[in-house]
Amino acid sequence: MRTIEWIDDKNVVKMIDQRRLPHEVVWLDYYSAQEVAQAITTMVIRGAPAIGVAAAMGMALAALESKAESHAELMADLRIAHDVLYAARPTAVNLRWGIEQQLTLAQNLEHESLPQVRAALIAQSKRMADEDVLINQTMGAWGASLLPQKVNVLHHCNTGGLAAVDWGTALGVIRSAHVGGKDIHVWVDETRPRLQGARLTAWELMQWGVPMTLIADNAAGYYMLSGQVDAVLVGADRVAANGDAVNKIGTYKLAAVAKDNNIPFYVVAPTSTVDLRTATGAQIPIEQRDPREVTHPDNDPLGIAPMGVKVGNPAFDITPQRLITAIVTEYGVVYPPFDEGLRKVVEQAEIDRANGRVVNPAVVSG
Amino acid sequence: MRTIEWIDDKNVVKMIDQRRLPHEVVWLDYYSAQEVAQAITTMVIRGAPAIGVAAAMGMALAALESKAESHAELMADLRIAHDVLYAARPTAVNLRWGIEQQLTLAQNLEHESLPQVRAALIAQSKRMADEDVLINQTMGAWGASLLPQKVNVLHHCNTGGLAAVDWGTALGVIRSAHVGGKDIHVWVDETRPRLQGARLTAWELMQWGVPMTLIADNAAGYYMLSGQVDAVLVGADRVAANGDAVNKIGTYKLAAVAKDNNIPFYVVAPTSTVDLRTATGAQIPIEQRDPREVTHPDNDPLGIAPMGVKVGNPAFDITPQRLITAIVTEYGVVYPPFDEGLRKVVEQAEIDRANGRVVNPAVVSG
Repeated sequence: MRTIEWIDDKNVVKMIDQRRLPHEVVWLDYYSAQEVAQAITTMVIRGAPAIGVAAAMGMALAALESKAESHAELMADLRIAHDVLYAARPTAVNLRWGIEQQLTLAQNLEHESLPQVRAALIAQSKRMADEDVLINQTMGAWGASLLPQKVNVLHHCNTGGLAAVDWGTALGVIRSAHVGGKDIHVWVDETRPRLQGARLTAWELMQWGVPMTLIADNAAGYYMLSGQVDAVLVGADRVAANGDAVNKIGTYKLAAVAKDNNIPFYVVAPTSTVDLRTATGAQIPIEQRDPREVTHPDNDPLGIAPMGVKVGNPAFDITPQRLITAIVTEYGVVYPPFDEGLRKVVEQAEIDRANGRVVNPAVVSG
Repeated sequence: MRTIEWIDDKNVVKMIDQRRLPHEVVWLDYYSAQEVAQAITTMVIRGAPAIGVAAAMGMALAALESKAESHAELMADLRIAHDVLYAARPTAVNLRWGIEQQLTLAQNLEHESLPQVRAALIAQSKRMADEDVLINQTMGAWGASLLPQKVNVLHHCNTGGLAAVDWGTALGVIRSAHVGGKDIHVWVDETRPRLQGARLTAWELMQWGVPMTLIADNAAGYYMLSGQVDAVLVGADRVAANGDAVNKIGTYKLAAVAKDNNIPFYVVAPTSTVDLRTATGAQIPIEQRDPREVTHPDNDPLGIAPMGVKVGNPAFDITPQRLITAIVTEYGVVYPPFDEGLRKVVEQAEIDRANGRVVNPAVVSG
């Protein structure tokens, strides 16, 4: 099962509706870039790698929709689609990455026929989906190598197959460790306000048969202080050049508490999530979302707070690099000083990608 | 409005049903110790000072219910009530404190008539309620003196009038600061799983006209790291002799994050919450509550997690004394080393109580 898929015979993008999980498994079809942007904004699909691929597929849909009769006209339509998709959510850099890969490709094909450009955009978005799975499994192997044979990990939000095309980032590491025979148990943060941990991570881990216990976010400190957590694993929506990691709200609290207990804190993120153009976390825009996410949890029409209450609802926070033990990428584990290590893996990824490789086997085996 | 009150003409204990707030204001009547214990277990009434008074009133009801014809028979019935009330919730020491005050009084009156003993138990429980308000207002004054003129505080759980008889502990400090003319704004942690912050604290602050913003617990780190919090104020369910504070789950995480940002972290607790018989927090029993509190938030019959998910639900955590800036009691502000300072205020409180005083004016003015 993939979270998002391009269906060839219908030229449609199919996504699982993550808002309906775990109670219902519903698939939705998308025919336009506008619809894909809406799916990202409303969180039908979420997770940095997943929305990167969704945005790339959205660009391919825009090319198909376009009535352009020249390359220049097509580029104009793609730029409109770029803006619509880019505005869907501000924080995860994979969104920008996915759109820009497509725009660059279309630009490079200016001497090809329009049907060829369209076919190339579709092909590239499908390849990005395939590569995402390979990247995640590679990160899974790197990350699992950091964990002892018997291990209790704490996990925030959802970073599983549902947050990517398949397998997952931080949860992919957990899956790789489990499949690789490690004795792993996961403390699953429910992850208010949208409860991706309770709804999605618990569901995935139960499907995979990985031992787990769901907890309120508030309980994470109790388990860390009482010696029941050996490592914290999280994903990221954007990693700045200095290693500051922006991730789901609540991540920074976990990092500070992990530090207070000398528990290793690992960020698992592909190079497409590393943004060398952003120097530090302070420059990353933090999305503020609808107050109703806080006051009206799923299935609660009445709400949990007084009518008219004022609400703050930042969707992400910044974990300073000083609190991060290591960043796991598909090019290996990066340790402090992060600026140097991250530049190295991102530059290698760009060279390899230009040569048609998504993961350098030499680097992986090293 | 008081959270709990003894109604003389009916010999009944009246409580506001805190499970129904903020949507409905419903009062319930209790006629027996057994019913009061049930109200404590099911959280009709909660908050350390409030359940201390409730337990004392429960003992008075037990004396009224008793068919005893001798003092020895009455003591036997009171000891049964003691056990029933003591078992209602394990963590807050005020519960034990309230019951023991009553048991000691009854014991001391062994040469009085049974009607006189019953009347004395009723009178003492009513006096404990009155004194609770005075104690809270005194703590409010001490605590407010710690805050600058313009201040953003972060608050966890509910420690307001609803957690006490009236006024509150940590929220009482906020109320005193507001009434005293300070420019105070409160970040209100929603406090999963039972959402006392969203349901009760938001409601109280809105009634008092104190500026506030409700946030998911996960967002507290975002506001602290971005310089928008000047102090953290919490209550306690039990403070050990060394200063370790047991409080609502999630408190320890806040303390660690406050430390990471050099933000003062204040615990506001009356001397009845300080348990000199317990050396450190590690010896305090942590209540584990029903998994449904996590999986089925209020008004959500469907639930937020997959069917059959395994859940951990500790109701409290331990904040190590090394993370606490000061403990505010009705006898003044106690700074580290806490063991010495706490012993002093508790011993003074015991002397004063034996002399019929609840707060020593000399100490307060000092």
